[in-house]
Amino acid sequence: MAGLTNQRIDGARLWQTLMAMAEIGATLKGGVRRISLSETDRQGRARFAAWCEEAGLRVRVDSMGNMFARREGRDSTRAPVLFGSHLDSQPTGGKFDGALGVIAGLEVMRSLNDLGIVTEAPLELVNWTDEEGTRFGRAMMGSGVWAGLFEEAAIKALKDEDGVSVGAALAAIGYEGEVPARAFAADALFELHIEQGPILEAEEKTIGVVTGAQAQIWYEAVVTGQDAHAGTTPPVKRRDALVAAARVIGLVDALMREQGETGIADPGRGTVGRLYVSPNSPNVIPGEVRFTVDFRSPEDARIAEIAEIFPVKAAALVAANGCELALKTVFRVPAQPFDAGCVDLVRQAAKKLGFSSREMVSGAGHDAVHTATVIPTAMIFCSCKDGLSHNEAESILPEEAEAGTQVLFEAVVARANRSLR
Amino acid sequence: MAGLTNQRIDGARLWQTLMAMAEIGATLKGGVRRISLSETDRQGRARFAAWCEEAGLRVRVDSMGNMFARREGRDSTRAPVLFGSHLDSQPTGGKFDGALGVIAGLEVMRSLNDLGIVTEAPLELVNWTDEEGTRFGRAMMGSGVWAGLFEEAAIKALKDEDGVSVGAALAAIGYEGEVPARAFAADALFELHIEQGPILEAEEKTIGVVTGAQAQIWYEAVVTGQDAHAGTTPPVKRRDALVAAARVIGLVDALMREQGETGIADPGRGTVGRLYVSPNSPNVIPGEVRFTVDFRSPEDARIAEIAEIFPVKAAALVAANGCELALKTVFRVPAQPFDAGCVDLVRQAAKKLGFSSREMVSGAGHDAVHTATVIPTAMIFCSCKDGLSHNEAESILPEEAEAGTQVLFEAVVARANRSLR
Repeated sequence: MAGLTNQRIDGARLWQTLMAMAEIGATLKGGVRRISLSETDRQGRARFAAWCEEAGLRVRVDSMGNMFARREGRDSTRAPVLFGSHLDSQPTGGKFDGALGVIAGLEVMRSLNDLGIVTEAPLELVNWTDEEGTRFGRAMMGSGVWAGLFEEAAIKALKDEDGVSVGAALAAIGYEGEVPARAFAADALFELHIEQGPILEAEEKTIGVVTGAQAQIWYEAVVTGQDAHAGTTPPVKRRDALVAAARVIGLVDALMREQGETGIADPGRGTVGRLYVSPNSPNVIPGEVRFTVDFRSPEDARIAEIAEIFPVKAAALVAANGCELALKTVFRVPAQPFDAGCVDLVRQAAKKLGFSSREMVSGAGHDAVHTATVIPTAMIFCSCKDGLSHNEAESILPEEAEAGTQVLFEAVVARANRSLR
Repeated sequence: MAGLTNQRIDGARLWQTLMAMAEIGATLKGGVRRISLSETDRQGRARFAAWCEEAGLRVRVDSMGNMFARREGRDSTRAPVLFGSHLDSQPTGGKFDGALGVIAGLEVMRSLNDLGIVTEAPLELVNWTDEEGTRFGRAMMGSGVWAGLFEEAAIKALKDEDGVSVGAALAAIGYEGEVPARAFAADALFELHIEQGPILEAEEKTIGVVTGAQAQIWYEAVVTGQDAHAGTTPPVKRRDALVAAARVIGLVDALMREQGETGIADPGRGTVGRLYVSPNSPNVIPGEVRFTVDFRSPEDARIAEIAEIFPVKAAALVAANGCELALKTVFRVPAQPFDAGCVDLVRQAAKKLGFSSREMVSGAGHDAVHTATVIPTAMIFCSCKDGLSHNEAESILPEEAEAGTQVLFEAVVARANRSLR
């Protein structure tokens, strides 16, 4: 493959920098709590910006707080090649989900400096705002606005549980930039991320060549019954919203398992991740339960089927328990294929470097899934221990981080140096 | 029946006073939020104390914040006859649960004043601390310490979700009295309460003659699985604590329905009232779910059966879902019969006053269930709309409140004037 450099990134520096970022929001159990637009997020951003400046990159921030750290190319009129991920985490997240892609990108920049390489096209390292969606309920927020999938004003008006809006939180940490948050002419985007699943590890593969992302449908459900005294209200009079919600949780699990439950590559995903009970008092039959539901599949057809079946079955179960169901589709995204050319750069880089690899579909949402709707995009996965993520015990080996970063380096440089003729 | 006065309490004043108490902690939906030892509880206590003093009663507060408002009898060496209930409410409670028994007791005192009646034995109107158990997780706290069922130091060390202890909360609102909270020589206790169930209304009976209270067993359950990424983790790798908890919620409901589910007098009660999910993020498979479970039955044998069956079946369901269950019995109380003599006074009063009545077992826990373990006790129920309680829509008619209060008046006066020879 033309364009491969045979140059090596610095694995030790990469690891050291990952660990330095993990200090910010470090939890007692070895994980990270760096919730989007919080004070710890601000600290993480500031440390990242300082590192970028030390590396000679020019940092700009857009109106959604997305950060772009630019390294000029030989031809500054060319559209830049983007790469990066996100620095925010789940409430009890790990050290690598998101941070790996950003810090690996920094290592790419540093290595280029060390090696004295100037690429043809400019390069831009990105830290997207609020990929996790844990605080304001909208995942991949910054990249979604950037790609034109979400309306900026509506996103900025979203509030967290304390009533703080996205706009206010951005301003509070000083990251509401003046550059408009919208897609600009970019040549491509590459995102390195941990797999967050068990497949690479089980098959002893080093690199996941990600060909696209799953179709998804997300709901917000509200089950309404009637709160009443737990000690006096007889079975026939009960309209217990939690009993009804429990049936729906069982339905979500059953619909997931219909798609296979025997192997690690089974495609079914269906989860109730967040649930609130009201009034939530030990002596009161719950009158209302609110919860999230998400289903994912590599197949658009399966999600279409779920969109038909689930609301009907769920409503019937809830009604059979004397309650009512209000179900709102929060978002629905089709399966998103990545750019064939970019995917091939990843495939070739892994091969040239001698890493075992496997083609796969991303189970998780990623900022790259949003950018893929407007610019050529690909992703690189590296293995993580026990497939565990969104967990403080999330873990990868230094050599896994290094391998993924080396692939990122090769793919980025190849794309930036490609002939445009 | 000897001792009945044929004197009438003032129904209009009773209702007006109930409404004046309901102003404190009033909610937009017409209910009350007067959580124990909160600032609104303090306001309710202060208003109650002022009314007692206006009525010439002497108020003392014990070390658990239980309030006793005393009216002397002709023979002040006689043990007093107690009556009352509680002024604290559920987070979204109604106007009458608890407050009716206290304000009815005040109306008894006021009527005795108006009628110029001095009873033989002294009378004491009681407001027990924290009947609902909603803040510190221990229901009927004040009466439980008073009756020697709970250890005072242990109760005072219980903390709410903000880490405030019972002791600190009592001190903060100025209601940690100097009188020790322990049972003193009392002749009897009567508690008027709304039924909080649908039986009286359905059978068009005015008065419930309560012969005792249900047996109960309460658990705290913790289901532990593993939090992991919702989009990437395949069915075979999931240990979803919420799916496992949902199975247990279904089991609680099924065990309840085994005891009957066709009529309003069916004895089964089984409820999961409070539940917390962790980490409670839309994109994360829940790793831990904590919840309360309570079962009640008029039959001790049924509760004994549940105590055998439930932990085993629940653990098996949870294990089948790849998770672990830790189950702690928070408390277990046998069925508590009330005093035959006191119950008969209630029965006779209702009959003499021409009210239709029905004997019944209390489905709810009440302070009277605690006092019944140390002094002769009985309860009077009056009907509430749709059997609804622990709900802001809880509702009774003025004539229902008046009827119950009139029965309380007759029973209390008869007991206080009984011959001790």
